[in-house]
Amino acid sequence: MGENISTKGKPIRCKAAVSRAPIAPLVMEEIMVAPPMPREVRIKVICSSLCHTDIGLWVLKDLPGIYPRVLGHEAIGVVESVGEGVHEVAVGDTVIPTFVSDCGECDGCRSKKSNICTKLPFKITPYMPRYDQGTRFTSLNGETIYHTMCVSSFSEYTVVDVAHVTKVDPSISPSRACLLSCGISTGVGAAWKIANVEEGSTVVIFGLGSIGIAVAEGARLRGASRIIGVDLNSKKFEMGKMFGVTDFVDGGKCGDKSVSQVINEMTGGGADYCFECIGLPSMVHEAYSCCRNGWGKTVIIGVAKPGSELGLNYHDILDCGGKSIMGCIFGGVKAKTDIPILLQRYLNKELRLDQFVTHEIQFDDINKAFDLLLTGESLRCVIWMDK
Amino acid sequence: MGENISTKGKPIRCKAAVSRAPIAPLVMEEIMVAPPMPREVRIKVICSSLCHTDIGLWVLKDLPGIYPRVLGHEAIGVVESVGEGVHEVAVGDTVIPTFVSDCGECDGCRSKKSNICTKLPFKITPYMPRYDQGTRFTSLNGETIYHTMCVSSFSEYTVVDVAHVTKVDPSISPSRACLLSCGISTGVGAAWKIANVEEGSTVVIFGLGSIGIAVAEGARLRGASRIIGVDLNSKKFEMGKMFGVTDFVDGGKCGDKSVSQVINEMTGGGADYCFECIGLPSMVHEAYSCCRNGWGKTVIIGVAKPGSELGLNYHDILDCGGKSIMGCIFGGVKAKTDIPILLQRYLNKELRLDQFVTHEIQFDDINKAFDLLLTGESLRCVIWMDK
Repeated sequence: MGENISTKGKPIRCKAAVSRAPIAPLVMEEIMVAPPMPREVRIKVICSSLCHTDIGLWVLKDLPGIYPRVLGHEAIGVVESVGEGVHEVAVGDTVIPTFVSDCGECDGCRSKKSNICTKLPFKITPYMPRYDQGTRFTSLNGETIYHTMCVSSFSEYTVVDVAHVTKVDPSISPSRACLLSCGISTGVGAAWKIANVEEGSTVVIFGLGSIGIAVAEGARLRGASRIIGVDLNSKKFEMGKMFGVTDFVDGGKCGDKSVSQVINEMTGGGADYCFECIGLPSMVHEAYSCCRNGWGKTVIIGVAKPGSELGLNYHDILDCGGKSIMGCIFGGVKAKTDIPILLQRYLNKELRLDQFVTHEIQFDDINKAFDLLLTGESLRCVIWMDK
Repeated sequence: MGENISTKGKPIRCKAAVSRAPIAPLVMEEIMVAPPMPREVRIKVICSSLCHTDIGLWVLKDLPGIYPRVLGHEAIGVVESVGEGVHEVAVGDTVIPTFVSDCGECDGCRSKKSNICTKLPFKITPYMPRYDQGTRFTSLNGETIYHTMCVSSFSEYTVVDVAHVTKVDPSISPSRACLLSCGISTGVGAAWKIANVEEGSTVVIFGLGSIGIAVAEGARLRGASRIIGVDLNSKKFEMGKMFGVTDFVDGGKCGDKSVSQVINEMTGGGADYCFECIGLPSMVHEAYSCCRNGWGKTVIIGVAKPGSELGLNYHDILDCGGKSIMGCIFGGVKAKTDIPILLQRYLNKELRLDQFVTHEIQFDDINKAFDLLLTGESLRCVIWMDK
């Protein structure tokens, strides 16, 4: 804690992995991290894990791609200092930052039905959410360095709005807890909070990356009796099996049938729940087409190119009587309420997190994490800050 | 009952209003009505009411427009005779025919969550549902006369599959009970069974025809505290007020704002439930756009031109986290279970049906019913079979 006394209210000079150009390896640099403004929290990052959304931003030439930037939004850390008006967390608390906010005050945050904060709504902004155009990072020569999704955890220290921070039990393994900062909460939450999967139901998951696998884990916890995984990579079925996937459809080997035709035949008229975890409008169509008329729910999780048309016909929706389609952000998980619930379920040995961590590396090797995710070798690679 | 003994198993010669060409007045003719085939029921119609869908079919040159045809699908009658294997209803029973089936055997009919029968699925077919290509009507010179939506009630006698028939208490006024055969069940059911409107919620209804008004009635019964009606005809607000509409937005008088902007301002970020009762893709967009992010439900009820694109963007759905869009057929009402419930609520003076009946006429004047609905003068015009 002595460290805090010496740094509180002052900029901190520390190491960060800076993204300086599209698809270029991150560069280890020393940067300056400003002290937290009112209602902000400065965090010493313990570890991060790499999420596909970081890669999605890392490849972009144009906005929301921006350079130089500190990527990373799936993390855990310890509060180093807090800005004015922060009472919810204190120096030394272990916290999980999240790209979604939970202000606790707006209609959305006060409702049990929603995790959509209207006070600090989700935007892929390179700035701090409460103070437009502001960042807390500069290079040593004073150049502005941008944020990522209100977190920016590929830095030894980062600054986060208090609405984006959840206090957690410090005894939980950081490399497991950090997974709940984005991807695993999103997948598990989509099955739990958004679809509200019922016991004995049939679920189809399009895309067996870590989000899709997390949907399977959520569906398993909810008691789904049949979980069908769809992917072009049949190797992913082995991983899926560990998380309760019971059937596999290789999207490239359906012959003259579409994936939805195959699944409609397998299920006798469609699944109860379909989850699109890829980000392709055509796969949303397939998902919706093999979702049960009358009550099926199709949940979109995958992120598509901005401006993508969905191309659904009016009568596709009207004529399917009660079958619904919806999106989800962070799996409908309310950060400050639901992350602690999920962590407790991990401690109870109900929710599995260990198996998601396929790799662990040191901060200096961060570019390896990108390679592992790009080649599909890893589900989650945890990146530990150097001791 | 003496009548049944003489007609059972034989064709019946009776009066029907035959639609012989698009938009042409119906022609009063004598036709032959065949006896019921296995699992069919022949009904002596007591009265019908005219629904917009009849007009929708009546104007069409091409399929599903077809000529000559007996229109009418919102009705009540008495069983004249039954085909082989019909045990559910008997001669003399009062029944409501419905365009949706309720076979009681398939997954959909056995589920509490759905009214989508997969055994005899809804198709706008001009034939009997169980025997492809067959009709039960011929003209006196043997010409085939087609059916409408499995009911065809603009005839003194009609034949309906037993899956399309609900037995009801014969003491209930036929001119009220017949409304539950289609439109009013659709609107009330959309609020009750599909959207499951919660107490204290805010509802927006696009289009204040009888379906929209019935949605208002359903929302009122569910305890909605604010019901906003949208229409281009401000006269409809007076009618709406009688059914619990609390606010009115004239879609033609929003200045430089869109309807959804006006409603988003009125509601501080969108309504809990939006119902599209017109049948226009652009209005579905407006409805979805003023439905609350996070938990709002947009329900499509209005019938659009076949092939209409919905034009929703992928991120319109993904980014609204948990906000859903869905269609409905017959308001999600399970005919044989829910129509008796609605009738009981009418008898309990909870559900209002009387106010929907703005006009009552005799069968010979049936073309007047078309004029009244086309000019917007009537909500429901009941057409009584001649004594």
